[in-house]
Amino acid sequence: MMDEQCFLLPGERVDDLQFQGLRIIQSPDAFRFSMDSVLLADFCTLRGGMRICDLGTGTGILPLLLYGRGEKLTFDAVEIQKDAAERAERSVRLNHLEGCVTVHAEDLRQAQRFLPHAAYDLVVCNPPYSAADAALLSPNPALRGARQESLCTLEDILRAAEWLLKNRGRFTFMLPAARLQEAAAMLENHRFHLKRLRLVHGKADRPARLALMEAMTDCGSGVQVLPPLIVKNEDGTDTDEIKRIYHL
Amino acid sequence: MMDEQCFLLPGERVDDLQFQGLRIIQSPDAFRFSMDSVLLADFCTLRGGMRICDLGTGTGILPLLLYGRGEKLTFDAVEIQKDAAERAERSVRLNHLEGCVTVHAEDLRQAQRFLPHAAYDLVVCNPPYSAADAALLSPNPALRGARQESLCTLEDILRAAEWLLKNRGRFTFMLPAARLQEAAAMLENHRFHLKRLRLVHGKADRPARLALMEAMTDCGSGVQVLPPLIVKNEDGTDTDEIKRIYHL
Repeated sequence: MMDEQCFLLPGERVDDLQFQGLRIIQSPDAFRFSMDSVLLADFCTLRGGMRICDLGTGTGILPLLLYGRGEKLTFDAVEIQKDAAERAERSVRLNHLEGCVTVHAEDLRQAQRFLPHAAYDLVVCNPPYSAADAALLSPNPALRGARQESLCTLEDILRAAEWLLKNRGRFTFMLPAARLQEAAAMLENHRFHLKRLRLVHGKADRPARLALMEAMTDCGSGVQVLPPLIVKNEDGTDTDEIKRIYHL
Repeated sequence: MMDEQCFLLPGERVDDLQFQGLRIIQSPDAFRFSMDSVLLADFCTLRGGMRICDLGTGTGILPLLLYGRGEKLTFDAVEIQKDAAERAERSVRLNHLEGCVTVHAEDLRQAQRFLPHAAYDLVVCNPPYSAADAALLSPNPALRGARQESLCTLEDILRAAEWLLKNRGRFTFMLPAARLQEAAAMLENHRFHLKRLRLVHGKADRPARLALMEAMTDCGSGVQVLPPLIVKNEDGTDTDEIKRIYHL
């Protein structure tokens, strides 16, 4: 545990991901990764050797979880918030992944300036969930940028993904289920076809909370709506699938 | 049973809907109603006194099932195929519903000619499932018109619904789940907001087959994705919800 201390600023802590020995640095004042990132990482279609870009990496959780799932993956991870980017960078070093994960403290709206065109097999994103004009703006700017579209909109993210992806590359992201129509229409406007959709329900008899989506360009239309992902059994215990995803 | 014979043409038969004493005339050569119509009727939001338009009524199944669910509902049902419209008309008389269901043997693309503007609380539609250019065109023109967009497209249906609905009226329809993005984007282009979405899965661990959708104009955005509708239990028996819907 001693060596971890060298990587931490005051107030930060190291969380063990309980997966492939991976660890992540988090700060109580900033956006911390949630179950949703774990579900998104599980939902991604991976092949060995993929080049992956994570737009708005936050803590750096997605590259870490995907690294744990795949073989010979390389990552560019973009984060506009300097503190978060610097913390993600330290998590990368803590896991000795400097060779395969590069963190860019940059604005994804200017991806063309610092990332290569049509170079990625997969673009992933856990975007802000709420529109910029939504109520309940967080007074904490770090949380606001991670949760609301104050720093970038879904449209900005799609534009970046479109520019970064190889022909037939995949864009994999999630949004609250309530924004499903908006997301589908916006994908259509950017010539993305939704290929896989998975809805996440807290329980089998509850409305969906989250939509996991995989989109492609340059392919036929037609979405496969996967079996619903149910988080809890009727009695409140984790479902078998959640246990599988969490390696429990 | 004798009186039923007066309503039948050669080859036709009367099916008992096992619901409110309702019966329907069907022909083996034409499109027969399926489970999907029963699910759509159950999905509709009804209030007493609603004025309802069914676009492409086929056998007339939706007005019959909705009549059985609601109070003081009145219906205009449009069917371009003359034989089917005439058969639906006879089903209406067989059930003594001439006072509340009017069948129009007309083309829904010309709804403006024979139906009133902004007069309906609800427009329902069980549309052709396949695009006109899809493979496997049925050689039977009656089946082709009911299953493929040879007689009207989703765009035609949306245009008609937009014109027919009152302010804040509802458009309730279904499509194969694979066409979800196309439907969502097309609704968006016609200023419809998807308000409720329900995905129908043959079993809980299978991809969705069907999407039931309710859309409105002149309202806020944000879709409620309802709990998945599962048709069969793991052991192949009907789920409790299917039993409820079928009044079993």
